[in-house]
Amino acid sequence: MSETTIDRRRARGDASRRLILDSATDLASVEGLDGLTIGRLAESAGMSKSSIATLFGGKEALQLAAVDAAAEIFRGAVVDPARELPRGVERLAKLLRGALDYSRNRVFTGGCFFAATAADMDSKPGPVRDAVRGWLRDWYGYLEAQVRHAAEAGQITADASTVRRLAFELIALDNEANSRSLLIGDDSPYVIAASAMREKLLAVGAEPAALEPLA
Amino acid sequence: MSETTIDRRRARGDASRRLILDSATDLASVEGLDGLTIGRLAESAGMSKSSIATLFGGKEALQLAAVDAAAEIFRGAVVDPARELPRGVERLAKLLRGALDYSRNRVFTGGCFFAATAADMDSKPGPVRDAVRGWLRDWYGYLEAQVRHAAEAGQITADASTVRRLAFELIALDNEANSRSLLIGDDSPYVIAASAMREKLLAVGAEPAALEPLA
Repeated sequence: MSETTIDRRRARGDASRRLILDSATDLASVEGLDGLTIGRLAESAGMSKSSIATLFGGKEALQLAAVDAAAEIFRGAVVDPARELPRGVERLAKLLRGALDYSRNRVFTGGCFFAATAADMDSKPGPVRDAVRGWLRDWYGYLEAQVRHAAEAGQITADASTVRRLAFELIALDNEANSRSLLIGDDSPYVIAASAMREKLLAVGAEPAALEPLA
Repeated sequence: MSETTIDRRRARGDASRRLILDSATDLASVEGLDGLTIGRLAESAGMSKSSIATLFGGKEALQLAAVDAAAEIFRGAVVDPARELPRGVERLAKLLRGALDYSRNRVFTGGCFFAATAADMDSKPGPVRDAVRGWLRDWYGYLEAQVRHAAEAGQITADASTVRRLAFELIALDNEANSRSLLIGDDSPYVIAASAMREKLLAVGAEPAALEPLA
């Protein structure tokens, strides 16, 4: 077999994987990762069960690949655009707006992929739960690091315990906006959450100009 | 058949229903309401599939009965004790503490029943989703009514839009404590949430004595 043939096959396999993972992340945001069976996915992606099994192996490998794929989509939608701004309050405000928009725009049909799958997996020990947990820890840690940096740079007034609590509250507002909007089927929770985030940061002395994404 | 025989059969049926619903609410808090199949429940309750089907009819009737049973447990654990206190800030603080404790004490194995099942059902239209939604609306409405009453009675300083946002934030903190504790497997999120709730109410002028449950 020539190298070109191998390359072509590999490219075809990669394209199929991407197609399947697009369906898989969307399906998992609605059905949970537990509902992500190869049979169900074959139906929603319009492929045969055997070709999905060939590309991914078993259900657990598929679930883990879906978590990775969702993380990449979240990074592209929320984290990368914020990294263009300086660390601290500006990046924080952009991250929060990005997270609200990612949920509001229904990048995944079931709202935030990680909120949906964390609720699904949190009482089920194993590598899939660990992957979801690991990702959430990273995201919460990254957000808290921006709050900490803002405090260290004097952009806000907050000691270590206030930094921790403030990060917890900002994340709570983002998650509540996602779940409440799915619950009531309208966008008003995002407006309330953004306004509460902004007030919270103003109350610790952030410059209004840096909070423009939340206005 | 004598009336006594009928009464005895009815009592046996009621006891079986309660036994099954205890298992059902607990199972649904882990597996979601979608995972609440008659087969799975028969296994966890140690009963035959046919006796469960006889008592409840189909899966949907079972799911709806589980939502009602969970609501009753929540009322007994959280709402009833708070109703012994006067409306407004005192009842609000007691409700919030009750809600945190109900989650922390793992009244249901999977943490808050409604957080788990809302995440599971929110993208699946139908009577079961409507039942979960209806309950959440009632609970959020009841909590917001206490905030509103506190404002009207001059116990806190808050206009209509602040009342709405404050209620949203308090609920966000409660839900975040539940999900974060399930995520990291320890109790510290309840401490952070209670302290943030207390600060929030102090900031709008609540008397520290009325917030004792959150101290």
